[in-house]
Amino acid sequence: MLFQGWHHLRSSEGEINWSGRFVGNTDPIMEKFKASIAYDQRMWEADIKGSKAYVKALQKTGLVTQNEMEQILTGLDKFKIKPGDEDIHTANERRLKEFIGNPAGKFHTGRSRNDQVATDMRLWLRDAFTTLKELALQLISTMVERAAVEIEILCPGYTHMQRAQPIRWSHWILSHAASLSRDIKRLEDIRKCVNVMPLGSGAIAGNPFNIDRESLRQDQISINMVETKFLFWGSMCLTHLSKMAEDLILYGTNEFSFIILTDAYSTGSSLMPQKKNADSLELIRSKAGRVFGRCAGFLMTLKALPSTYNKELQEDKEAMLDTYDTVHTVLQVATGVISTLKVNQSAMEGALCPDMLATDLAYHLVRKGMPFREAHSCAGKAVYIAESKNIHLSKLTVEDLQIVSPLFDKDVSSVWDYTKSIEQYSTPGGTARNSVTAQIPHFRTWLQAQKQ
Amino acid sequence: MLFQGWHHLRSSEGEINWSGRFVGNTDPIMEKFKASIAYDQRMWEADIKGSKAYVKALQKTGLVTQNEMEQILTGLDKFKIKPGDEDIHTANERRLKEFIGNPAGKFHTGRSRNDQVATDMRLWLRDAFTTLKELALQLISTMVERAAVEIEILCPGYTHMQRAQPIRWSHWILSHAASLSRDIKRLEDIRKCVNVMPLGSGAIAGNPFNIDRESLRQDQISINMVETKFLFWGSMCLTHLSKMAEDLILYGTNEFSFIILTDAYSTGSSLMPQKKNADSLELIRSKAGRVFGRCAGFLMTLKALPSTYNKELQEDKEAMLDTYDTVHTVLQVATGVISTLKVNQSAMEGALCPDMLATDLAYHLVRKGMPFREAHSCAGKAVYIAESKNIHLSKLTVEDLQIVSPLFDKDVSSVWDYTKSIEQYSTPGGTARNSVTAQIPHFRTWLQAQKQ
Amino acid sequence: MLFQGWHHLRSSEGEINWSGRFVGNTDPIMEKFKASIAYDQRMWEADIKGSKAYVKALQKTGLVTQNEMEQILTGLDKFKIKPGDEDIHTANERRLKEFIGNPAGKFHTGRSRNDQVATDMRLWLRDAFTTLKELALQLISTMVERAAVEIEILCPGYTHMQRAQPIRWSHWILSHAASLSRDIKRLEDIRKCVNVMPLGSGAIAGNPFNIDRESLRQDQISINMVETKFLFWGSMCLTHLSKMAEDLILYGTNEFSFIILTDAYSTGSSLMPQKKNADSLELIRSKAGRVFGRCAGFLMTLKALPSTYNKELQEDKEAMLDTYDTVHTVLQVATGVISTLKVNQSAMEGALCPDMLATDLAYHLVRKGMPFREAHSCAGKAVYIAESKNIHLSKLTVEDLQIVSPLFDKDVSSVWDYTKSIEQYSTPGGTARNSVTAQIPHFRTWLQAQKQ
Amino acid sequence: MLFQGWHHLRSSEGEINWSGRFVGNTDPIMEKFKASIAYDQRMWEADIKGSKAYVKALQKTGLVTQNEMEQILTGLDKFKIKPGDEDIHTANERRLKEFIGNPAGKFHTGRSRNDQVATDMRLWLRDAFTTLKELALQLISTMVERAAVEIEILCPGYTHMQRAQPIRWSHWILSHAASLSRDIKRLEDIRKCVNVMPLGSGAIAGNPFNIDRESLRQDQISINMVETKFLFWGSMCLTHLSKMAEDLILYGTNEFSFIILTDAYSTGSSLMPQKKNADSLELIRSKAGRVFGRCAGFLMTLKALPSTYNKELQEDKEAMLDTYDTVHTVLQVATGVISTLKVNQSAMEGALCPDMLATDLAYHLVRKGMPFREAHSCAGKAVYIAESKNIHLSKLTVEDLQIVSPLFDKDVSSVWDYTKSIEQYSTPGGTARNSVTAQIPHFRTWLQAQKQ
Repeated sequence: MLFQGWHHLRSSEGEINWSGRFVGNTDPIMEKFKASIAYDQRMWEADIKGSKAYVKALQKTGLVTQNEMEQILTGLDKFKIKPGDEDIHTANERRLKEFIGNPAGKFHTGRSRNDQVATDMRLWLRDAFTTLKELALQLISTMVERAAVEIEILCPGYTHMQRAQPIRWSHWILSHAASLSRDIKRLEDIRKCVNVMPLGSGAIAGNPFNIDRESLRQDQISINMVETKFLFWGSMCLTHLSKMAEDLILYGTNEFSFIILTDAYSTGSSLMPQKKNADSLELIRSKAGRVFGRCAGFLMTLKALPSTYNKELQEDKEAMLDTYDTVHTVLQVATGVISTLKVNQSAMEGALCPDMLATDLAYHLVRKGMPFREAHSCAGKAVYIAESKNIHLSKLTVEDLQIVSPLFDKDVSSVWDYTKSIEQYSTPGGTARNSVTAQIPHFRTWLQAQKQ
Repeated sequence: MLFQGWHHLRSSEGEINWSGRFVGNTDPIMEKFKASIAYDQRMWEADIKGSKAYVKALQKTGLVTQNEMEQILTGLDKFKIKPGDEDIHTANERRLKEFIGNPAGKFHTGRSRNDQVATDMRLWLRDAFTTLKELALQLISTMVERAAVEIEILCPGYTHMQRAQPIRWSHWILSHAASLSRDIKRLEDIRKCVNVMPLGSGAIAGNPFNIDRESLRQDQISINMVETKFLFWGSMCLTHLSKMAEDLILYGTNEFSFIILTDAYSTGSSLMPQKKNADSLELIRSKAGRVFGRCAGFLMTLKALPSTYNKELQEDKEAMLDTYDTVHTVLQVATGVISTLKVNQSAMEGALCPDMLATDLAYHLVRKGMPFREAHSCAGKAVYIAESKNIHLSKLTVEDLQIVSPLFDKDVSSVWDYTKSIEQYSTPGGTARNSVTAQIPHFRTWLQAQKQ
Repeated sequence: MLFQGWHHLRSSEGEINWSGRFVGNTDPIMEKFKASIAYDQRMWEADIKGSKAYVKALQKTGLVTQNEMEQILTGLDKFKIKPGDEDIHTANERRLKEFIGNPAGKFHTGRSRNDQVATDMRLWLRDAFTTLKELALQLISTMVERAAVEIEILCPGYTHMQRAQPIRWSHWILSHAASLSRDIKRLEDIRKCVNVMPLGSGAIAGNPFNIDRESLRQDQISINMVETKFLFWGSMCLTHLSKMAEDLILYGTNEFSFIILTDAYSTGSSLMPQKKNADSLELIRSKAGRVFGRCAGFLMTLKALPSTYNKELQEDKEAMLDTYDTVHTVLQVATGVISTLKVNQSAMEGALCPDMLATDLAYHLVRKGMPFREAHSCAGKAVYIAESKNIHLSKLTVEDLQIVSPLFDKDVSSVWDYTKSIEQYSTPGGTARNSVTAQIPHFRTWLQAQKQ
Repeated sequence: MLFQGWHHLRSSEGEINWSGRFVGNTDPIMEKFKASIAYDQRMWEADIKGSKAYVKALQKTGLVTQNEMEQILTGLDKFKIKPGDEDIHTANERRLKEFIGNPAGKFHTGRSRNDQVATDMRLWLRDAFTTLKELALQLISTMVERAAVEIEILCPGYTHMQRAQPIRWSHWILSHAASLSRDIKRLEDIRKCVNVMPLGSGAIAGNPFNIDRESLRQDQISINMVETKFLFWGSMCLTHLSKMAEDLILYGTNEFSFIILTDAYSTGSSLMPQKKNADSLELIRSKAGRVFGRCAGFLMTLKALPSTYNKELQEDKEAMLDTYDTVHTVLQVATGVISTLKVNQSAMEGALCPDMLATDLAYHLVRKGMPFREAHSCAGKAVYIAESKNIHLSKLTVEDLQIVSPLFDKDVSSVWDYTKSIEQYSTPGGTARNSVTAQIPHFRTWLQAQKQ
């Protein structure tokens, strides 16, 4: 396209610069705007690793000689990021030139900066996934061992934040371990999408001009998909943990008093000497928002972007690193909290109340032949009478109960036993002693397998 | 917990109602607030199917007789939703009572409304996934067949919305087909998480009081995970399609004139008679936002929710149905657009310009032994000289070029050939004729396999 | 731009249609995709009102005669939406033609459908804002009257969900009333941006060809800004109410037992007869997510949209209506909840404990000349000793306290008085009796002023 | 609440630490998790300023002596943040102790860390708003001056990315200036909510024990509201700029060639020597997503938080600083881009085509007495005939046109004049020369007034 008739408001002509084409000056704010060195630094190791693989591939195709390759490899080993570097890729090349001179110029034959970034990301993500998985496994392991030790502690199970039915405390713990194990499963699925063959190395096989930039572009897009999935993974994982944190904050109120955090995970108030705030749990609860914001932001950035490379794809890096760092810290803090919190068994068991056995009262009638819906209604009436009398459900006399249904008899007393109620739920995943216990070795085996 | 000392601001005592417990009146606004019939209606078929399976399981355990089971099954066949129904589950049970009397009361033994909802959701999701997959396959199929026919059309490939290098138009089409095929892959992955065994049916095997509500609760949580993943899937899928729509809107501007939509997918202006707006593409572009909003909203709702059932989990339904409906429509409209748009081959090929071969000019020097970085700089200088002279790059004389590098010779003229440039990219996934052609049967085979 | 060389994949030629231009068939799915009648129906009244104003303006400029104007006005009064109507604006015009014949054709001189939509929106929004404001005022009024009655009830003030210091229950209520009053203030600010002069009516003054479509376009953009601000307003308002709901759900747990909802705002469990779930509050808590999702979705839709009208701007309507409906319902339900919940004064006051006066213990030392930071530390040590002894802070003897600081004396006993502690905070907005009481008439006056 | 029966899994007992209460060790990861020094550093100046005001207030109440006040003021002047500091507030106090000894301990009488943070935020926000406003004014000023110079350049106005009607280029520029001026207006509105009286200073007037922590708490909440509004403000402002950037990216494609960026705001390709990418505009376009993500994240964090202070409120800082920094940079880069881009007048005017006057053709008929809807249809038919003949609308003969309507005559030739068409829109805000020109001094006066 030939431009004619340009209407110059303000001329900014200068002289030919590095690229042989650019003739204007640069705006330092623009430089800062584009700069990526802050997060490139995090990619440094991955970049060296990928560059070494690439140069070996170049040598195989004859595009660099054995000697040049060795020079480049040696040069890469000397590389360090310095303040003032604009981005890792050009820094890497420029520094190389200082170390080894001319062969450095051959180093980028057939790969663009974007190709290089894509390779770096893959290598980095592979390591990141491994680290996060290890931390999540450690948290699950802590949960499982705690659940094994505290199997005898009973507590109320809540739905709608209302006491629902008696459960084992270990059952609560393991339900969160199960959630996390599903998060690990999903992380593994995403990891499978990261195909880590150094870019270009295969493509170069024939000759350098067969290098397939279009397929590299596809690669870039698929990397963006992996990152986006990772951002969402972070959101879901932290949303799960925010729910666990909410439970624990609740259990740690003076009113529940089921648990207390150790000082390492609490903070005092600068004003109120008696306060001991569950800052660790509150921060865990908050991070789901932060990480989701990163995901939302990047998806909004992607929306309606033309379908090839555009500069905004660079926004993925900070989102991804922040998500990684946040999940990384949350998993560690959660492990610390779970491994050190103290449980108040008497408070937990003291919170069980006979009303929580109203369903058992209904089942008692079902066993005597009443259809469930009718039995549910009878139990409801019994609850109402007890409330009117301001006594616990278990304190109703047989006479009281017979007003509700003639099927009630003195054997109703067998209903008022929390452990017996719990032991009904003995199917896999249930809250009965044997069901919970059975999950422990299952988890341990799975953890062992995951670690390999 | 016994309540004492309640401070009554306003009494709302009434009489015992349906549940045997509730004694207050109901606020009609509250009723509307809780109502779920609007989306329950969509679950109707799934609910009947799940209920039938459940009643058969009850019969096996002896909790309902063979005769009762048959009555219930007959009754379920007669069920229709009526205006005024509050939610499908209670409507279903109440109606059943009208049809068959007492046995209806046994119908819900051991399963709560939440269990029933979870089963319905699974059955519904399974069908929904199948339908969306079929529509996506149809879109891919349309793309592939179009790509096969239009293989000879060349057009500019863009990055940063700037002409980058010549590609085949079919290559553009297939890159979006590939994106969609990855979306299908991810949908399949989510579908695998939907374990559709009717809830309770297995659990009941022993006796009804072994019914494991806790494991059902885990189920509910895992259903929420599936839904959340589905909401995000919708966002990613539509984000991909928003990018395709953006490309096509661009290609359809007067300035590009690469494509024109048929009237079926355009709309006129009520004011400007000459306007023909690409409403279909604009709506496709817009829906990524809508669907992501649903995902964002539901995740925000989930954040810090106590870890068991809470009423807000009900919010998933509308989000899910709206996402389903939106993706459903977008896939169909996109199929219509792709199958009917007209391509202006001469405009596409007229948009190719010699500058797009500057990389080839650099490679020309690399072939003569110059390191790539230096060759890139030389080509850049040539571009600059051509711009200064206000001529196309290909119009530079050998003398002009030799100022930039003495390696240039008259054989440089071989560079100025778009087809030759394209044919360099012959690796799998490349834009060369044989690479693009090779993808067609690959896609067809994959589509065939998916349909089974 | 003249198109040549179109490559027809599939022909869809037909004959000339309504617009005199379109020659293709229409895709019924596309029709549904574009249809807006569902939300247009909500705009019906506003549309008639705006259309009447417009036609009067046309008459003034002589573009329609007095007689034509009267015919049109009469015709507009007969208008009703029917099933099958595509959008309110064309329906309105078509129907008008049936009623009054030719003059209907003049009805749209100089205004496009978008202009008409923009006017409708303004008129609709003005009414919507009025309604929401009234509902919010009603909720505040309920809060204020409740606070007036229950001024004597004390309860713990919480920070970090931990008991912090004693406050008046009315203080808690009024803090939420204050939040809501700020929401009303912001709604008023947004309302001011809705300039409701019927579009075109002023512009037409001279002659119809001075109609300024460009300024109408600006109008459209500013309407989008108003809507976007309204969507965010809804998010903030419901986020505030989600926090209030969270507090109340917490206060309604068995463990806190501070409040109990009436049956009108609770729901029983289909499985557990004793359960009474705070569904109303949980739904209030959930809606912040829903509404924010709408805001997020629309903003994502707006992102990077070219700066004039594009079809996706139509997405605002559903977002806006859903936000309006949701806030509308939440305000009503919240009013119902606040006006009917029962407060358990003895539970609230029973939850006060001497530890909450540790800051007062520190202030006691400050009054005796100790720097605050040192006093804070001394009080902290006292708390620690009390915990070690497993007694309440107030049960420490003077001897115990003197280990911590010799400044302690028997006058320390004056510290252990919750009411006295509360009465220290007598500045405006404080929790002292007179401070809280002073807010009541202030709120009442404000409410009165707002209603006018 | 007295805790009994704690079940110790793992003991972490230690000795009494700084607060006089905490007895456990600290987890270094937890320390990092809580740390706020990174953003506190940004608040440093504001913190010193607020602290000075506070200490003066303390002196007035007699809580510190004149001498102590002077010591503290001197000490505050010496304060610098050092690596290893945990948060600015405790650092500030600890350092003060090193400088001036005991009086430092009195420094925090009656204010908590949260109070101090809230004051810092207010002071910081006030400055931040001023800076952003100045940058936005500078951008508007650049736009206005450019619009003044380039008033004669015509270009197509687009809707739906399709050529709609001829406008002045300056009209496009000023429409974005108007958008931004509304953003400034909204920023001013938010600023008004920041009441900057140093916290406590008023309250202290009587005596320190009247300090109203509850009202400070309200303050904290209202600060959160201001921040949330600011986050959303950033989103809206950058969404506006993303739309402007999208327009300019489009105008800068080879196909439009309306504008070209100077090298200072473009970047070359590391692979394609001819490429000059509009990185600056792409980054502007991307930042709306980033900033909205911050807003979404923080709102999600706020959702359902109990209504007093919780640790997650700390998340506001990073969101706010990132939003500030991003908007700050975007405004500067946008100013650079607008002031240096070059306009290709001949390309802009060459893109005008007679079809864009089809509405004028309809108005031509309206002037001859035809109802608008019928005239619109006639003009549409004329467009269709011209397309069929593959000629421009203006090339239709009078005979051609008379087939459509007998009202057409040779005076129709007067329609085909872009300038004349533009000059019809002479109402305020219109695109006629005098309307656009009239806006310039209006903007200049407004800018002048804003700067004061």
